Amino acid sequence: MQRYFLKNPINPEVGSQFELTGDAVHHWIKVMRAQVGDQAEFVTTDHQVVFGKLLGGTAQTAQVTVVKVTTPQVELPVPVTIACGVSKGDKTEQIVQRGTELGASAFVFFDCQYAVAKWAPNKRARKLERLAKIAQSAAEQSHRTVVPTVSYQASLTDLVTNVPFDAGVVAWEESAKQGESSQLVQTLKSMTANQRLLAVFGPEGGLTSDEVATLTASQVVPAGLGPRIMRAETAPMYLLSAVSFWCELV
Amino acid sequence: MQRYFLKNPINPEVGSQFELTGDAVHHWIKVMRAQVGDQAEFVTTDHQVVFGKLLGGTAQTAQVTVVKVTTPQVELPVPVTIACGVSKGDKTEQIVQRGTELGASAFVFFDCQYAVAKWAPNKRARKLERLAKIAQSAAEQSHRTVVPTVSYQASLTDLVTNVPFDAGVVAWEESAKQGESSQLVQTLKSMTANQRLLAVFGPEGGLTSDEVATLTASQVVPAGLGPRIMRAETAPMYLLSAVSFWCELV
Repeated sequence: MQRYFLKNPINPEVGSQFELTGDAVHHWIKVMRAQVGDQAEFVTTDHQVVFGKLLGGTAQTAQVTVVKVTTPQVELPVPVTIACGVSKGDKTEQIVQRGTELGASAFVFFDCQYAVAKWAPNKRARKLERLAKIAQSAAEQSHRTVVPTVSYQASLTDLVTNVPFDAGVVAWEESAKQGESSQLVQTLKSMTANQRLLAVFGPEGGLTSDEVATLTASQVVPAGLGPRIMRAETAPMYLLSAVSFWCELV
Repeated sequence: MQRYFLKNPINPEVGSQFELTGDAVHHWIKVMRAQVGDQAEFVTTDHQVVFGKLLGGTAQTAQVTVVKVTTPQVELPVPVTIACGVSKGDKTEQIVQRGTELGASAFVFFDCQYAVAKWAPNKRARKLERLAKIAQSAAEQSHRTVVPTVSYQASLTDLVTNVPFDAGVVAWEESAKQGESSQLVQTLKSMTANQRLLAVFGPEGGLTSDEVATLTASQVVPAGLGPRIMRAETAPMYLLSAVSFWCELV
């Protein structure tokens, strides 16, 4: 069933009605051609899921009645912020799209020394807006109840200063080369539910020793992610899958 | 350092020489502009890695001397075969490329009832050849010592008959919906080193109950991969990351 995120609070009770506006109503009525009586799922601003039945309306605004209310547990017990160096081409988009499917709660892109790409300051807002849309659409498709946030930090110092976290790991090529293989498990074992994990990934060019030192000084520790070399956009997928496997399946 | 897979056996001893031919020599000398004295890594047909120094040659054939021999452990302790329904667009390529980075030992693509794409029989060989090239290049980049194989099966019955495995899981949407969350861990716990895991993934349209019954009759058991819905090309990445995390880090 189609799923949409609501922008405004509603009364999540069976039988209550709400007004659907914005992109959601346009998509449901114009693109999906919903008819009176059709149902869709709507995620409330409190992360509940209500099944709503279309009563009537236009592509601008529609009336929906609540027919069922659920509170599914589909979010990672440990909220993960994926922080990546700014990348070339569509890599940032891939990281946001797949990372959302895999449960990330936030994405932060940062500038760093070996970055092969830069976001021009005058294009930054538009890029973040586009990535936020990708996150929302991936959250709808993967039936999340939270849309991950997407933001930018000018440096790793700004990152560790401005982004809140309870534990942090950085996937650093050098520690992988040295065969580091226990830090990720150790970090996950030390965390309790709802503590926030920050996971930092370099750009294609990697991170400098100074940048890694900035991170370790803030308790973001180098962690190996297995003995194979992964591209910049694959490593975050590994991390998120490992967190899900550990917290949701083991 | 650049890495190439050798097609023919060599003597992997420091000081011995070998002849480099084919795509590898063309890439190293023409594309990377290697000069006499430059080094690269070569994976032997026995999965050893030799560091070789260029003695001289042309873009067709070059003489290389062995300067160092290593036997790195970069392959998953449990070889994983990723079997996927044939997909649209570049999804099969993405599965092979990222799956190789994440350690898969083989890929099998199969036809099934809800597949949204078909491989025309006259184009199948060319598609497999192209995917094999992607696997080789991803194996080089991720510093694997094994190039995953890529093959095709006409049905799930053919798959379970022709593809050898010691344990098998199928990522089935219905078992995920029912909250199944213990089977993957149970399967991994039951396996010993070098036992082969077959992991089956439906196409975008999913698998039918009959197809899943065919699999379970062959001891390929439905396994949930967490509570979020993943796209056809994301689920294999989750599985491979989980296997690596479990076998290589936990």
